[in-house]
Amino acid sequence: MITPSPASSLFAEALNLPKSAVERLEERNIIRRAIIKHPFFSDIVEAYRLDKKFGEYEEGTVILRTINGITVVRGFPKIRRMLTIRPAILKHFNGKRVVAEEKMNGYNVRIVKAGKNLYAITRRGIVCPYTTEKVRECFDTDFFDAYPGYMLCCEAVGKSSPFVSSDVYGIDDLKFYVFDVRDGKTNRPMSVERKIEIAEKYGLDLVPVLGEILVTPSTIDDCVREIHEIVEELNRRGREGIVLKDVDMSVQLKYTTSAANCNDLRYAFRFFNEYGRDFMLSRIVREAFQSFEFDDEGAMKERCRRLGEAILKPMVESIKTVSSGKVVCETVKLKFSSFETLELFKEHLRLMGVNFRIEVVGEKGGKIEVELERVMRGTTDKISGILKGALWR
Amino acid sequence: MITPSPASSLFAEALNLPKSAVERLEERNIIRRAIIKHPFFSDIVEAYRLDKKFGEYEEGTVILRTINGITVVRGFPKIRRMLTIRPAILKHFNGKRVVAEEKMNGYNVRIVKAGKNLYAITRRGIVCPYTTEKVRECFDTDFFDAYPGYMLCCEAVGKSSPFVSSDVYGIDDLKFYVFDVRDGKTNRPMSVERKIEIAEKYGLDLVPVLGEILVTPSTIDDCVREIHEIVEELNRRGREGIVLKDVDMSVQLKYTTSAANCNDLRYAFRFFNEYGRDFMLSRIVREAFQSFEFDDEGAMKERCRRLGEAILKPMVESIKTVSSGKVVCETVKLKFSSFETLELFKEHLRLMGVNFRIEVVGEKGGKIEVELERVMRGTTDKISGILKGALWR
Repeated sequence: MITPSPASSLFAEALNLPKSAVERLEERNIIRRAIIKHPFFSDIVEAYRLDKKFGEYEEGTVILRTINGITVVRGFPKIRRMLTIRPAILKHFNGKRVVAEEKMNGYNVRIVKAGKNLYAITRRGIVCPYTTEKVRECFDTDFFDAYPGYMLCCEAVGKSSPFVSSDVYGIDDLKFYVFDVRDGKTNRPMSVERKIEIAEKYGLDLVPVLGEILVTPSTIDDCVREIHEIVEELNRRGREGIVLKDVDMSVQLKYTTSAANCNDLRYAFRFFNEYGRDFMLSRIVREAFQSFEFDDEGAMKERCRRLGEAILKPMVESIKTVSSGKVVCETVKLKFSSFETLELFKEHLRLMGVNFRIEVVGEKGGKIEVELERVMRGTTDKISGILKGALWR
Repeated sequence: MITPSPASSLFAEALNLPKSAVERLEERNIIRRAIIKHPFFSDIVEAYRLDKKFGEYEEGTVILRTINGITVVRGFPKIRRMLTIRPAILKHFNGKRVVAEEKMNGYNVRIVKAGKNLYAITRRGIVCPYTTEKVRECFDTDFFDAYPGYMLCCEAVGKSSPFVSSDVYGIDDLKFYVFDVRDGKTNRPMSVERKIEIAEKYGLDLVPVLGEILVTPSTIDDCVREIHEIVEELNRRGREGIVLKDVDMSVQLKYTTSAANCNDLRYAFRFFNEYGRDFMLSRIVREAFQSFEFDDEGAMKERCRRLGEAILKPMVESIKTVSSGKVVCETVKLKFSSFETLELFKEHLRLMGVNFRIEVVGEKGGKIEVELERVMRGTTDKISGILKGALWR
């Protein structure tokens, strides 16, 4: 009989797991630390997360032991993707009222109250000091006090983003847009209507609701046309895509613009040795099905050009970078409110296994401006070798 | 003490392997049958091949026990690829005289004499009945009688090709172009000069020799210019590329045209669920380095367009195929001289694990015309699911 680890014991207590489940949990070795011990996180005594799905519990599920007891924060569920709109909505939304919300291009954050303060948890289930600092500046605790145990699921969007920096929203700093309000313990979401009421009452920014349709075999043509128009408008503005949700939140499906697919490809091919082949192929497949469903000959020609440029140009740019003696890297500018959070954030990146360089470049309006640089060592070394005459396969 | 299998024993006897090597060979389980028992292969008593490299012995190495004794046929060595011409030739050919031969787009065949007859062995080391039939029609045994134990390494090229069918050579049937003459047992190649003499003497078709350069730091500019011109001319004609060989055959490097890279991509993306992501990425990487080394802005723009079309158009074609109720497949027309070889060839494809349909479509000039169809089940099923509304990831 093995004594369960403190982490497993916490999960067992929080989720009321039978002994056999605890043993499986130990065996699978999928529990990780979710937090760095630090005064900034003073409400939290200990916190662990699931690094993989476990039974009904999503990857990224976190258990916090706070000064007031145990808090369960379920992982944000994976939203499945449509590749063709018409058959997918008929199959999955037939007879349902469905809203189309904008899928914003940032990183997924769950905001919870633990003890006296707010905490921001990223997708994989780590409490992020940078995001937590921002969240405490943007939100008060009113909503959380009225709805204990609930979490706000948000997209963190803007240029000052350590994970997904985006320029298209006109946000220089980082802002949070709520897309779901969920019970942290059960993961049950509020209906779209209630979410909107709550956002109004507590002054929360919601991701834009762009349309509403009723999907039936007789309205399907109009539905597809409307969704296509919404997606095309987003595409023109360089936005990422939509999430379709039936108003009771029983089904959700996402769909992305060509602009987003190409953005992903530009990123992946710029760092082609760091990024998975599957990541690349899946974006190309999305473009192919979108082209099949909507393109006439001219649009397809234009899409081919766009796709080719999204793939080739960033690779050539990276080759030129290495050829001129520099390293291939990604740089973002972040703004911290205190040196304490900055130091903690560095530790956080190390915990996440990120290979980075960080430098303070200035102080303005009480904010510390830093440059975060992630060196893409694999891509740099690969290119450098080839430019010295190394062979491939 | 385990008794070695008949296959291992044959390898042991042919290669004079010590007992420990035979044991390793058994353990690794990399010996496969190289032949189907059949009167057409009457000279061969038994034949086995290496499915993986083993020590110095290449993948595709075959041992034949014939009516006259044992014949060793070494696997054709992997030729490494340059991604940038200038640094690669300086690094690998400095001070050497180098010829540029055309790399033709077909399949690699080693021709050997075993017993009284010629046999054609494909890359992986399988004696192919279709190719053997053609070889016996195209070659007499004069060369092999004068050079016992030698093999002719050829590219089998043309439209009637069961493995790589190509239209660009104006060859309706299948023809063989010699690129190496090698000692079957040691794999030692003859020099370029001797190969040319032998080809003249025995009336063999050689792959075209397109140029000769002397690589030194002071001639490097001219070398790169000349190679680039050769490659561009091949590219204009839709040809595959070149193999650079120093005249003594101590180093060989290959390099492909953009036309070939895009051809590969068209093929891979048409059957995107069958083909490896690595296959796709490697072709894209080749284009990026070629663009970096040679393109001005206009050429790069044109290359992006070409690349985008090579990727997207075939995928959309496959989607349209499935959408119209058909299956995604590859069809080639082959010509057999006898029904016996046809039947044997079917067995051969099964041995190779190919999923195919074959149909006799006519008889003309003593030849049996058949249509060979390889159904791409994975791609077909994937597309079909998505067109019915299935989701991705």
